[in-house]
Formats: sequence, C-alpha cells, structure tokens
Amino acid sequence: MSGRHLVTGCAGFVGSTIVDRLLRDGHDVIGIDDFSTGREEFLSAALDNRRFELIRGDLLDPAVSDEAAEGVETVFHMAANADVRFGTEHPTRDFEQNARVTLNVLEAMRRRGVGRIAFASTGSMYGETKIIPTPEDAPLPIQTSLYGASKMAAESFIEAYSEGFGIQSFVFRFVSLLGERYTHGHVVDFFRQLQEHPERLHVLGDGKQRKSYLYIFDCVEAMMHAMAASAERVNIYNLGTDEYCEVNDSIAWICEALGLRPAITYSGGRQGWIGDNPFIFLDTARIRATGWRPTLSIRQAVERTVRYLRESSGA
Amino acid sequence: MSGRHLVTGCAGFVGSTIVDRLLRDGHDVIGIDDFSTGREEFLSAALDNRRFELIRGDLLDPAVSDEAAEGVETVFHMAANADVRFGTEHPTRDFEQNARVTLNVLEAMRRRGVGRIAFASTGSMYGETKIIPTPEDAPLPIQTSLYGASKMAAESFIEAYSEGFGIQSFVFRFVSLLGERYTHGHVVDFFRQLQEHPERLHVLGDGKQRKSYLYIFDCVEAMMHAMAASAERVNIYNLGTDEYCEVNDSIAWICEALGLRPAITYSGGRQGWIGDNPFIFLDTARIRATGWRPTLSIRQAVERTVRYLRESSGA
Repeated sequence: MSGRHLVTGCAGFVGSTIVDRLLRDGHDVIGIDDFSTGREEFLSAALDNRRFELIRGDLLDPAVSDEAAEGVETVFHMAANADVRFGTEHPTRDFEQNARVTLNVLEAMRRRGVGRIAFASTGSMYGETKIIPTPEDAPLPIQTSLYGASKMAAESFIEAYSEGFGIQSFVFRFVSLLGERYTHGHVVDFFRQLQEHPERLHVLGDGKQRKSYLYIFDCVEAMMHAMAASAERVNIYNLGTDEYCEVNDSIAWICEALGLRPAITYSGGRQGWIGDNPFIFLDTARIRATGWRPTLSIRQAVERTVRYLRESSGA
Repeated sequence: MSGRHLVTGCAGFVGSTIVDRLLRDGHDVIGIDDFSTGREEFLSAALDNRRFELIRGDLLDPAVSDEAAEGVETVFHMAANADVRFGTEHPTRDFEQNARVTLNVLEAMRRRGVGRIAFASTGSMYGETKIIPTPEDAPLPIQTSLYGASKMAAESFIEAYSEGFGIQSFVFRFVSLLGERYTHGHVVDFFRQLQEHPERLHVLGDGKQRKSYLYIFDCVEAMMHAMAASAERVNIYNLGTDEYCEVNDSIAWICEALGLRPAITYSGGRQGWIGDNPFIFLDTARIRATGWRPTLSIRQAVERTVRYLRESSGA
C-alpha cells in the first residue's frame, strides 16, 4: 500500500490515529471531518505535515466525498455517530450519520474509481447473540440498537458495492476501543464522575455486564496487517483481544490507577441502557490467523486510557 | 386482528392482495402508493369499498406516512423497489426506496404510536449462502445485490425500533412470488418474449439457476397466520414452498401452458446478471410449525401466472 488515501472522520479517535500512521508510513493523506465530535488537537501533528490535506465538511453532502475521492487508492471510512447509548433520543441520527453517509462515500468511490474501502463496524451488530465468543459468520442477529442497525446497513451496502462495482472491502467489527484520544464511553464517564466527586461512583446496570476492549494502536495495526495480506474482494474481521472483563473489573482498575476507593451504587438491571449488550466477546481467530497479535491486555489498555485522561485533563 | 390498518405499496402485487384480504375480513384499510409501479386496476374492487381510503403519495416525504399512520394498528409495509436485476444501473434507488422509506415508516409509527409492522423482505438477503435450504438464523451473509443490502438494512432498523420503541415486528423473507397481478420477473419476461416471437426464447444465464417460488395467496395467508399466532416482539419468517425448480423447468411449464416449442438460447454463466443468486431455497420449517401449508406447488403457481398473463394481456 502506498500513495494517496482518504480518511473520513479524520479528527476522531480512530481516524486521527490512522492519519498519523499513514503519514508515518510515507503516504499522502486527505482527511475529512465536520468536527461535530472530532477534535482539531488530534490533528496537530498531521497539520504540520505537507503530505496531509484537511477538508472541513459534512459527508451528508455528496459533493464533499465526491471531490475528496479524486485520485485516492483507499478510503478509510471512520466517520460515524459512535454514540450507542443515546440512540433512541435521536432516532434518525444513526441512519443519517452511519448508513446514509456510507452510501455517499460508496457513491463517491464508484464515480471516482476508488478501488478499496476499510470500514469501522462494530461488535454491537451481533446484538444479543447466543454464540460467544462470536465469530464473523455468527447466525443472523436481531439488531438491538439503532447504532448496530446502522452499521449492519452500512456493511450490507459495502458488500453489495464490492459485488456490483468491484471495490475491495475490509469490514472491521471493533469491540470498544481504548487508549490515547479516547473521548467517550464508560471509562471517561467513570473518570469524570470521580474527578467531580472522588468518594462515590454511580454505575448503569448491575456492573456485571461483560465487555471486550482493544487498545487503539493494536486496532490500527490489525487493520493495516489484514489489508496488506488479502486479495479477497470482501474481507470481514472481528477485532478484539481474546479476553473480556466485567464492568466491575474495569472500575477496580480505574480506581486503583487513580488511588481512589469510592462508594459504588448501581442503577441495576443486566443492561446499562436500552440496547446495551450485557455480554460482548468476539471470536478473533480470523485476524489472529493473519499473524496479528494485540500488544496490550484489557487491563493495560484501561490503565493507558486513565493515564491519557489524567494528562489531557491536566489532573 | 381487527380495526384500521395501513398498507404501503397498496397498488402493487403483494400490497393490493393484502388490501383485498383485509377488506374481505372486515377491516378498515388505508393504502399509500405513488403508482410508480403500482397499478390502479389492482385496486378496482377496493376503491368501491367505503372501508378503503387511498393516499397517492411518495413515502420519501416523511409527512405522507406520518399523516396516514394516525389511528392505525398495523402497518403492512410492502412499498419497495422490487427490481433486483437492474440495481447497479441506478445505485442509490434501493437505498432510497427500501431503506430510507422504511425508516420514514418506522418514524411515523413511533410518532403515532402504531404497535405493529409486517415487512416484505426477501430471500435475496441471504446472498450466496452455503446453507441450503436456508434457515432464518443462517450465518451472517455477504450481500451480493443492492436490493438484498437494502432489505437487510430495512430489517435491521425494524428490529432496532422493536427493541427501542416496543413495536412488534414481523419480517417475512419471501422467495419470488407468482400468481394473479404478477407484473415483473422471469415468467413475465419469458411470456412477453414468446408473445413477440413464439419460435424462440433467450434465457439469461445457463438456465440451471435453481429458484423457489410461492403463490401470492399462499404468501398472504402465511403472513396473516403468523401474525395471528405470535406474541413475540420480533418475528422473522421465511416464506416459500418446500421445493425448488430450475429456470429450465419453469420454461418447460410456461411453454407447455402456451402450447409452444421455441428454440432456446442461453447467455451462459451461472448467474443471469450481477448479483443473481444461482440457488435460492429457503428452509420453511418455522412457518410450517405454525400450521400453515401452501396450497399450490411451484408448477401450479407458474401455470396460474401464465393464465393470468394471458387473460390480462387479452391473448
């Protein structure tokens, strides 16, 4: 892989890490972000690099990706509404930001003759599957969140565009990611609660939800590794570690890292919110078969995240 | 089931058959169609019934379904771009007509408090699955057509709305349907060719594609049967017969019904077109477990279709 690549959501957690990686490897990178959740500071190194070009724009406007896709070899489509929890409070947002925007990106690729896409999907699209650890070819799931539904929709159109227009596709189903530039999710929720009142912590659900996490640099390395290895038209990979933890485990690690012993209260129930999946654990045999291995455990990734949050908050 | 029901795509093949069935059973029916492919003649009986109300409108306009959903108990969402074959010639049509429109219908249901949806999905969403006959919980498929992708997207949002907003959903994955009011597909293609030049017939693919079909009245009966029986929130059913045939078989039946012996030529290849699925055969154990049985074989359904096409073409 060399040449010019497009990263959507380039100022986000995953997108900005990919931008830095591609620039480090000597590629030309064009990035798009609307800065609705992306942060300019994540692009501070990239913006100093003459190989990087930034487009401020909204991918709901088809012209934005159409212009950016000119002369591009690979699109890393990372732009998304990544908020799973509040889906039902704005019911059409996931459809627009994740499904509609992906179609716009695919259309731009088709018109501009871009040959390859990497897509940030999610383990949430397996819903409450009974097969755990969950392989890529799990039984057709029932979607339990608008976020999962929107990623399933996007994946489906990516596959159809691969079949219909010869685009090579890489669909990566992430567990929750942790590490530097992590900006939303339960670790930051807990961190902020403890900054405000170090003596108490309120947890959604019963704390026994079992979740998987992957360190951001391990995630990006897995993507690059898989893309370098495959000549298949459609490639689907779960990305995660081969372990999971309870929410209570991560609370213990966070508290230890912060040197705190808060009183913990629980909202109760097996789900933290409607559509919360009480057990996410992906079978990662397929990506491991390419030779990739994660470098950090979940605990180490949580600790790195806490360190990052402390440093970036000036605490 | 009694009361007021909304049928989208009410002037189509399936929609108009549902309208007639609901009216026959004494329900009030409100129908929406934009008549892009629907035919006014299919509503001739309904339009004479004071219990039927017709809205001419485009479901891409959210106001159309929003107004129609007021006071409705069940939405039969049958409106769709049902053309599988020419998907790549108008790449965004399936997304708009099938995914976007379904979201609009779901939003109307959420806002108006409509409690139940029946949705016309498709066996095409199984792509080129290796599990044949294919059960409802087959391994996650790779989408091979924009049509299949759009139905997968619509199903996913229906499930998420069921989980998020308590709507009961019935997703029916049809094989190809045949019978009275059949307007597009290979039987009508062959029929028209033979009307034009009875001595020859050109077939896309090698004629050995294996396909399943279901008679339209058996299909609608299966839907009503499943909906009367279930209290589950999300219900997914394959609808088909427990047999399949080769395209060559249906050609033989059509020619016999018409008393013709044309010379047959083939375009060749295992697919008739990009995204054509060379073998569709659904496992229908789940719908059969409700007690439903089809009344016509595939051959009988083909023969009824030819009879209908002859009568409606005045041949």
